[in-house]
Amino acid sequence: MSLRILVWNENVHETRGDATVLGHYPHGIHTAIADGLRELLPDARVETATLADPEHGLSQERLDDTDVLLWWGHIAHDEVSDEVVDRVQRSVQAGMGLVVLHSGHFAKPFIRLLGTTCSLGWRNDGDQERVWTVDPGHPIAADVPPRFTIPAQEVYSEYFDIPKPDDVIFLSTFAGGEVFRSGVTFTRGRGRIFYFSPGDQEYPVYHQPEVRRVLANGARWVAPVNGRALPEVVALQRGWLEEDAGR
Amino acid sequence: MSLRILVWNENVHETRGDATVLGHYPHGIHTAIADGLRELLPDARVETATLADPEHGLSQERLDDTDVLLWWGHIAHDEVSDEVVDRVQRSVQAGMGLVVLHSGHFAKPFIRLLGTTCSLGWRNDGDQERVWTVDPGHPIAADVPPRFTIPAQEVYSEYFDIPKPDDVIFLSTFAGGEVFRSGVTFTRGRGRIFYFSPGDQEYPVYHQPEVRRVLANGARWVAPVNGRALPEVVALQRGWLEEDAGR
Amino acid sequence: MSLRILVWNENVHETRGDATVLGHYPHGIHTAIADGLRELLPDARVETATLADPEHGLSQERLDDTDVLLWWGHIAHDEVSDEVVDRVQRSVQAGMGLVVLHSGHFAKPFIRLLGTTCSLGWRNDGDQERVWTVDPGHPIAADVPPRFTIPAQEVYSEYFDIPKPDDVIFLSTFAGGEVFRSGVTFTRGRGRIFYFSPGDQEYPVYHQPEVRRVLANGARWVAPVNGRALPEVVALQRGWLEEDAGR
Amino acid sequence: MSLRILVWNENVHETRGDATVLGHYPHGIHTAIADGLRELLPDARVETATLADPEHGLSQERLDDTDVLLWWGHIAHDEVSDEVVDRVQRSVQAGMGLVVLHSGHFAKPFIRLLGTTCSLGWRNDGDQERVWTVDPGHPIAADVPPRFTIPAQEVYSEYFDIPKPDDVIFLSTFAGGEVFRSGVTFTRGRGRIFYFSPGDQEYPVYHQPEVRRVLANGARWVAPVNGRALPEVVALQRGWLEEDAGR
Repeated sequence: MSLRILVWNENVHETRGDATVLGHYPHGIHTAIADGLRELLPDARVETATLADPEHGLSQERLDDTDVLLWWGHIAHDEVSDEVVDRVQRSVQAGMGLVVLHSGHFAKPFIRLLGTTCSLGWRNDGDQERVWTVDPGHPIAADVPPRFTIPAQEVYSEYFDIPKPDDVIFLSTFAGGEVFRSGVTFTRGRGRIFYFSPGDQEYPVYHQPEVRRVLANGARWVAPVNGRALPEVVALQRGWLEEDAGR
Repeated sequence: MSLRILVWNENVHETRGDATVLGHYPHGIHTAIADGLRELLPDARVETATLADPEHGLSQERLDDTDVLLWWGHIAHDEVSDEVVDRVQRSVQAGMGLVVLHSGHFAKPFIRLLGTTCSLGWRNDGDQERVWTVDPGHPIAADVPPRFTIPAQEVYSEYFDIPKPDDVIFLSTFAGGEVFRSGVTFTRGRGRIFYFSPGDQEYPVYHQPEVRRVLANGARWVAPVNGRALPEVVALQRGWLEEDAGR
Repeated sequence: MSLRILVWNENVHETRGDATVLGHYPHGIHTAIADGLRELLPDARVETATLADPEHGLSQERLDDTDVLLWWGHIAHDEVSDEVVDRVQRSVQAGMGLVVLHSGHFAKPFIRLLGTTCSLGWRNDGDQERVWTVDPGHPIAADVPPRFTIPAQEVYSEYFDIPKPDDVIFLSTFAGGEVFRSGVTFTRGRGRIFYFSPGDQEYPVYHQPEVRRVLANGARWVAPVNGRALPEVVALQRGWLEEDAGR
Repeated sequence: MSLRILVWNENVHETRGDATVLGHYPHGIHTAIADGLRELLPDARVETATLADPEHGLSQERLDDTDVLLWWGHIAHDEVSDEVVDRVQRSVQAGMGLVVLHSGHFAKPFIRLLGTTCSLGWRNDGDQERVWTVDPGHPIAADVPPRFTIPAQEVYSEYFDIPKPDDVIFLSTFAGGEVFRSGVTFTRGRGRIFYFSPGDQEYPVYHQPEVRRVLANGARWVAPVNGRALPEVVALQRGWLEEDAGR
């Protein structure tokens, strides 16, 4: 079965008519992200959903039919219903992959899954962002250069309040000397999470080939490889060992 | 300033008059734990609090005056108010140490901080528990033998649904062949968390010297070493580097 | 290009005519391992090499043509030439995957790559080994049951002196209450390492389906995904950023 | 017993009469480092040793009497005898703490303990180095500001070929946009290792208060807390469990 990817975007800057955002993304950030994934993962099924859809486009049925969810949110985190957040959290714990983008560091599902404040430093002056690969053998770094430049981007900077990541794949620096752990992974239950910070709505970041490559690699990497099952309490039985040994 | 420790116990088995529990712990589990800490950390200030206290004994003022909170809960997790859970979570993120014991794997603050289901396998047949030290250089393992036996204890078994721990210090096995990551650590913000699984209410585990040693080591290890501050969003200023360089 | 796998075995028990070993593995342990890989990875090219081959069958040319090297050794670790060990170490650092089996915990390349003594506890009484999956979302755990039993196997036990693993995927227990981190991963440079402890020569472990599944998963997982390149010192140039930004 | 610290320096730039180095460190880099440690750890015993001393000042007796060894080397790594390197490696595995400084990333004991090439990018143009704390709750970060500036320093840059660190405490950036994991920890056996990159011989880095604070914290943190013992193979006995249970 091909990879089933769902790109979620709050789509609020766009529907409010923000000219800068619409200039870069006339059909919404989600569409640009989805286009990039389709280009690099031609066998995947790539769909999109937005906040304004019924149940934000994230019904249980939809999540059950999704291997990988990408999440872009910024100014409407609070409008995401707690019921949907519960659902997303459980889906990840059961094995659905999650790729959280940029300002999604404050998205409800991300904060819930990580348990930290996810706060950070920021500054928006259109700085160049330098992205450095610090785990070159990691699948998410495949075909990504040792370093690449994003011409203009919002600054995200340490201290980034996240748990110790499983993997730190990318570090970013900015003209002001700031540094950020810009590509990190986590595991929650059977689910894998990849956070990638480049992608502010004011800059055309998701059109850049290196960024598209990272997102495609990330989507493939978080995809479940061992089925879907929510971890549950198991009442063990005395003597199971002996039976088991009778195999 | 001496270490300020607060031992929290739901204290429900005891107040309901459970004869087994009261047989082992006539003054409550919290009192036995506190006694062990006082014995091994004579310079510490050790206090106790229970669910029935106003605000469960966990007012903001009290938490601000606490370096390390130990948590024992079992049948009344749901009775802990969400407001107090928020408070505990923020206190840990700001640097307060947290030691979670046994059935506290399902305590609200633990689940909130970890982001997983924290489910596990269990069986209660009074098995011996073998505790193995697998990180002998870790401070929590100081003066703990390479392996020790708890004569009778409830079985907790894998799969234990927790994020990848920062440290795995102890592994436990049981007569039925079960295995459990019984001593693990996590970091959330500035706060350190130590989970230690031995300690079911039906067995006198907290009177055992090796267990008391582990708890004392754990309390010392999670204690904050760099002040208390909740991580916050920081708006950086262009040019801070240049000013900074003028030092 | 299909996965290029090389199974290395010292092949000394076999050539000395050890009846027990030959009873289980008439064509050598390497042949049984290779058969298992061919069965589960039909598209892979699976070859074998042994200590007695010229350069132990591990010439630079051969290693350059290998994606994944599996290593079984026991009584002849010291007969492996340091030159070949250097070569294997560099190949792993450059990206070649390495799967180390059972008594290979004391193989020269493993010790060199890990930097620890790799010592452990052991006992050989034909105990049942219980293998528990503790990272069910990991690709190496795909299609492996939550727990399975190896009917008879040498006991390996903690303390196992290895660096903190990147992933702990399997834990094993034995009838005597022992526990062992039996499936663990490490990264060195661009290369991935998977150590799996079941597989003593006196028991027919490599014929067991679950074990074959783990080895096939492990081989696939350690395979390089981002080319082969030995990390090197790079003399940076002032001003590279500005040029880079001219993209 | 007070902390027993030994500061080792190859002391070659100094004895060759390098005017820049002697300008900053008239009594050698080791003396400046030792002075800083004495200032901040007044209860510690701080001694020094250099390459030219008999056995490089690192006899087995001396190492057995040392809790923490700091290592500064640059142009004479190859002159350190393999016998001494073996000794240092075993001492760390047994519990001695090791703090490796700057160009010591290529010191024989460090490479041996880590198992990687430890190569990196570099450029020496006197850039400012910004050191960011990314693990503010870590004891090595105690009383270290969230970020501080080293006015002039050699650039070290990613990709730094080290295993995944246990902790990443500091990240550094440079005027050219480079980034480096400048403060990282590892565990090998019972021993803890802290690597800290600032400290090129051409700049007076070890006189700077923040750097002195980091080194003092690092020395305290790597110090053994659970005795000294080289991990060894242990032959277990059938039935030990039953005896053990007779406690």
